[in-house]
Amino acid sequence: MTSPAADLAALQTPCLVVDEAKMTRNIEMMSARARDLGVTLRPHLKTCKSVDIARRLLTDGTGPATVSTLAEAEVFAAAGVRDILYAVGIAPQKLDRVLAIRRRGCDLAVILDTVEQADAVAAAFWRSGDTIPALIEIDSDGHRGGLKPDDPALIEIGRRLHGGGSALRGVVTHAGGSYDVVGHAAHEAFAEQERSAAVGAAEALRAAGLPCPVVSVGSTPTARAARDLSGVTELRAGVYVFFDLVMAGIEACAVEDIALSVLTTVIGRRADRGWLLVDAGWMALSRDRGTASQAVDQGYGVVCDEAGRVLPDLIVIKASQEHGVVAARPGAAGVDLPVGTRLRILPNHACATAAQHQAYHVLPTEPGAPLMEWPRFGGW
Amino acid sequence: MTSPAADLAALQTPCLVVDEAKMTRNIEMMSARARDLGVTLRPHLKTCKSVDIARRLLTDGTGPATVSTLAEAEVFAAAGVRDILYAVGIAPQKLDRVLAIRRRGCDLAVILDTVEQADAVAAAFWRSGDTIPALIEIDSDGHRGGLKPDDPALIEIGRRLHGGGSALRGVVTHAGGSYDVVGHAAHEAFAEQERSAAVGAAEALRAAGLPCPVVSVGSTPTARAARDLSGVTELRAGVYVFFDLVMAGIEACAVEDIALSVLTTVIGRRADRGWLLVDAGWMALSRDRGTASQAVDQGYGVVCDEAGRVLPDLIVIKASQEHGVVAARPGAAGVDLPVGTRLRILPNHACATAAQHQAYHVLPTEPGAPLMEWPRFGGW
Repeated sequence: MTSPAADLAALQTPCLVVDEAKMTRNIEMMSARARDLGVTLRPHLKTCKSVDIARRLLTDGTGPATVSTLAEAEVFAAAGVRDILYAVGIAPQKLDRVLAIRRRGCDLAVILDTVEQADAVAAAFWRSGDTIPALIEIDSDGHRGGLKPDDPALIEIGRRLHGGGSALRGVVTHAGGSYDVVGHAAHEAFAEQERSAAVGAAEALRAAGLPCPVVSVGSTPTARAARDLSGVTELRAGVYVFFDLVMAGIEACAVEDIALSVLTTVIGRRADRGWLLVDAGWMALSRDRGTASQAVDQGYGVVCDEAGRVLPDLIVIKASQEHGVVAARPGAAGVDLPVGTRLRILPNHACATAAQHQAYHVLPTEPGAPLMEWPRFGGW
Repeated sequence: MTSPAADLAALQTPCLVVDEAKMTRNIEMMSARARDLGVTLRPHLKTCKSVDIARRLLTDGTGPATVSTLAEAEVFAAAGVRDILYAVGIAPQKLDRVLAIRRRGCDLAVILDTVEQADAVAAAFWRSGDTIPALIEIDSDGHRGGLKPDDPALIEIGRRLHGGGSALRGVVTHAGGSYDVVGHAAHEAFAEQERSAAVGAAEALRAAGLPCPVVSVGSTPTARAARDLSGVTELRAGVYVFFDLVMAGIEACAVEDIALSVLTTVIGRRADRGWLLVDAGWMALSRDRGTASQAVDQGYGVVCDEAGRVLPDLIVIKASQEHGVVAARPGAAGVDLPVGTRLRILPNHACATAAQHQAYHVLPTEPGAPLMEWPRFGGW
């Protein structure tokens, strides 16, 4: 039972499988990118939510890291990560938890884009005596939150933080819009948009006599494509650890780079419709249909054999809670596989699919090594 | 801290809130329906995945019940449920777990629709000496798996089960297509389609000299609308325990019946776009957009104030992993609420939204009683 196939055969389906060799290549690719660009890499741990994977993502296991929830900050701080950016706008009600994590020796920073939040952070200092470092969120592509670099509120917030018992640590931006454009040149343009917005905001703060030591940018597509990050100090990215079909659809990776899949079993056949029923429904695959708006709609996922080889004619065309329907793509030949056959499904969106599961089953890089099981966590 | 609002104020967001009074009304409504129709109610526990809620759904806490995973069967059997139908086509590799649950004193039955599965169930008997009861899945609306009532495979499978060491317990059907039609009359027609397909299959088995003690039908819309279930022995339904916007959109409930919501906090504002950013993204709300194909697209959810009163002008128009964007519906007035404001979001699909969380925070029916926390589980 030492070959990968034999190990997978012992697993109950549906379950999450990680190809360690592919994951390691993805991690090394992004580390090399940050080195070449002369910036610090601050990996986003919201994709993996796993201490085992965080240790592989973070150079010496202690950071720097990015998280999307305070639950992530708490788990990773307890596991020894000492430098964390909580990159979702801070709610005033969450500042006591931020203070508690900081008291345990983790340098946790928050982000914000309103005067109310800056005042709440300052009030937390007066209450606790601890200075909470805060970065101001900058909007580089209009897709979500943040201030435009020329918004007068930027200086007002900077002043309230710097004078008010917080520490104005810098500016942060994320061009989520880069997920909606295809190809290296388009991602490079978004990377320059991130850079110029963040650097412009940093310059405006400095011109007003305020400090701005950190200039933080990034998303997986822009991090892969950036040519020049002058003025930027750090790069954030997350989904590259696994990659997924959405990233492949915008040419931010190849389908062969995708390190995450859902192992599933054929549980029924509808020869009249050319359907195979599998035991991975949306509960195992997630409801994410990120490729629906792309040039090639991959349904609920691309189908591979148990060894991970893509079966190019097949996709998961629909899903209910615990059933997936595998069928031929338009124009492709039909399919018939016996009940009990194992398949692996590549996900639309790795963050969403991984979140449906409680553990990773990891196919080791080293041939003959046993399958590993790494827990993952959720919650807020 | 005994009023509901004070209790909610102490919760960290995002989190899942259940209105116990609404849930109890929903449970009583469906129990009354089964009584009036003269059939046994076998609630589906895949929506709640909670022992506390299962005890309220099951008459005496021991069953009958329906589940969608063997993990559910294991948890509920351990909690004392003694009669469970695992209502997803059985994979041969899962039969050892079925046998283990049965050995612990729970009468767990499986469903299937192929000769291969019937032979695997029979082989498990020869291996273990335990008879696994099996129901044959009937296709009443073409939406997923099952055999048509006149498919010759029905009798062949019935013979292999009855003669082969299994127990042919009956037939089972689920008209998932009822979720796609609007109004009582349409649901009543689907209920009759379920009834006639299941009863037709039962008659075919009996005419071939085979037993068919159980004739099992149901979905929340058809269970609510059925007028006559002659020949049917039991009714299955699940999502009615909470209801949701998809059910409201097809008139299977009112919005006021929805007992489940996600508590969230305003974490940012984009006055230029009329947006509020909240800390419930798709990780808390799920990616389910079931109302997208309905007459009224409710986005990622209907917005209520902290007390649960619907704010009719607002919906969640988009969501990223940990951010939701609340905005006015088309033609409605804009919105501005301070950072820190608490809101509650009604879900598109209760099963999907609840699955994103690890606990229910339950507002008690009794005024002044403390908030309860009930764990929920996932996995397979």
